[in-house]
Amino acid sequence: MNAQSTLAGEIRQNIVTDRWVIYTPERANRPGQVRERRTRAAYLPDHDAGCPFCAGNEEMLPSIVFELAADSDGLWHTRIVPNKYPVLTSETDVAGTNRGIHLVTTNYGRHEIIIESPFHNRDLPVMAHEEIEAVVETYARRHSELYGMDESIQSVLIFRNHGEQAGTSIRHPHSQVVASGIVPEFVARRERIAEGYFQQNHRCILCDVVDLEQMDRARVIYENASFLLFVPFAAEVPFELWIAPTRHSPDFGLISRLEKEHFALALQDALQILHDRLDDPDYNCLIHSYSRQHSIVPYLHWYLQIRPHLIPPSGFEIGSGMQVNSSLPEHDAEVLRQEV
Amino acid sequence: MNAQSTLAGEIRQNIVTDRWVIYTPERANRPGQVRERRTRAAYLPDHDAGCPFCAGNEEMLPSIVFELAADSDGLWHTRIVPNKYPVLTSETDVAGTNRGIHLVTTNYGRHEIIIESPFHNRDLPVMAHEEIEAVVETYARRHSELYGMDESIQSVLIFRNHGEQAGTSIRHPHSQVVASGIVPEFVARRERIAEGYFQQNHRCILCDVVDLEQMDRARVIYENASFLLFVPFAAEVPFELWIAPTRHSPDFGLISRLEKEHFALALQDALQILHDRLDDPDYNCLIHSYSRQHSIVPYLHWYLQIRPHLIPPSGFEIGSGMQVNSSLPEHDAEVLRQEV
Repeated sequence: MNAQSTLAGEIRQNIVTDRWVIYTPERANRPGQVRERRTRAAYLPDHDAGCPFCAGNEEMLPSIVFELAADSDGLWHTRIVPNKYPVLTSETDVAGTNRGIHLVTTNYGRHEIIIESPFHNRDLPVMAHEEIEAVVETYARRHSELYGMDESIQSVLIFRNHGEQAGTSIRHPHSQVVASGIVPEFVARRERIAEGYFQQNHRCILCDVVDLEQMDRARVIYENASFLLFVPFAAEVPFELWIAPTRHSPDFGLISRLEKEHFALALQDALQILHDRLDDPDYNCLIHSYSRQHSIVPYLHWYLQIRPHLIPPSGFEIGSGMQVNSSLPEHDAEVLRQEV
Repeated sequence: MNAQSTLAGEIRQNIVTDRWVIYTPERANRPGQVRERRTRAAYLPDHDAGCPFCAGNEEMLPSIVFELAADSDGLWHTRIVPNKYPVLTSETDVAGTNRGIHLVTTNYGRHEIIIESPFHNRDLPVMAHEEIEAVVETYARRHSELYGMDESIQSVLIFRNHGEQAGTSIRHPHSQVVASGIVPEFVARRERIAEGYFQQNHRCILCDVVDLEQMDRARVIYENASFLLFVPFAAEVPFELWIAPTRHSPDFGLISRLEKEHFALALQDALQILHDRLDDPDYNCLIHSYSRQHSIVPYLHWYLQIRPHLIPPSGFEIGSGMQVNSSLPEHDAEVLRQEV
């Protein structure tokens, strides 16, 4: 029995995001649907004279906000620098006045780059253990620091764009942090949904999702002592992955020392599996943590999402607000489990 | 004075969709941000032996649902055929049962292709007057027919994907129609917003937008007796365009004979301007009409949206639900007006 064909033609709701996804496995057979592969990072040099993120090219950086030193060889592990082209900035010159019927507000916030390695080609899947732990340490530290240093910051988003289709033009391994003076729509929405679920069921929505996936196994790729790696029940795109802590926790910044180790392992394994199985696809990777006022509530639960870019969005998705996914989550999980 | 720099750093709300857009004009200077150009349609042959949409290749089509005959030479103007890879289908085999905490529903509906010309390379910008009017006639006719023939249809979406980045793999000029058994999220949202605005202001929200744009002129590209072509105040992407009827009308299917002529002109001009000024960009084009139960209300108003794909979305947009646009609407309008 072929799971792809027997389950064809269903629409699933992602209960965490409230989004509906249409499954059309037969569309995977359409011609020319998968994007061209990018040049693999492994073929890049370890140093690029024109890259501002490479060690030794510090004069190309506006400044260095933070540096995590390596233990042994004296080189740095990670660096944080200001984004030269910020989406939000504390140096804003716009008054929050409206124009006619239109609402306008200011873009207060901070936008920084986390350089993940001194080496141009040392991407997360090929990092040594201590290197990827340094990246996770930098994520967690900056997540807490940004809330701590500025009371106007309402929400912190850490994300990683890998490849041109995912919106990046710089190959050197890096992530980004955006700290916002407002709670962005998608964060507010997940908070609303989770709160409503808790009021009805007296349970955390993502704790329930994790429990269900652990019992069902159909979409689980991998599990360690602190994290579950799975394809969500209503994945929006082929091979979408979530990494969720099995312990209830709304705030990524409160990740424990042991959880950091386990998270580094899970993140590296997830990206390694995608790299090997899908030939280094472009992807966006995001940590969905919660806004300032919700860091200790019983109903929110942070998670990491990896969203590969294998098929471009179409007019139907833009017009309907629903995603069309040509690949069933159970099928994707089966394919990816073969790499574990 | 440079409008791009003086207005940098603002967040605008699109009052029709309730979405917030961050403007960062200085990001337009980032390296490698514009996608590679596609091969222009003008260099394609007028007939492709392997293309199922070309005249003479009928044996490659599953069936022909409808054909609009040309007046003079006996050839057809447009054809409607079933989509071989439908996102929705009336032959569904899924029961609408839920699985554990997860909601599942069926994907009832129809998904058709509108072949816009017998010729492989006769794209909308280069069509003769009567040819583009035939396309608009086919849109309007099918929009009404689909509601009429099936009482379960709640919503009809007509859209056009142009180029690979917009999700199409077939170059032959075509549009698509999806008729859904449900009201998709984005349609329901616009209906909710427009109803709320009407209750507060006793006015149609899009009538107010059209009035304001006509007075302000800063974002207007072009206007004819029935339609306004403009960059919306909170455009989500660079060079987004809207074409709105100046007469209040919720239902695209009720477009008058004269309006069809004027709409054909406005649509062709809009696509021509984009083609010439931006070197034939990939885009999605969508007609936002309203769901079955809302076709005669005083608060809804159909419009056409053209969304070019010049810059790929990034992790911040996916995680926040907010768009980042590196180009101000007033700037885009100024650039495009030079082609009129």
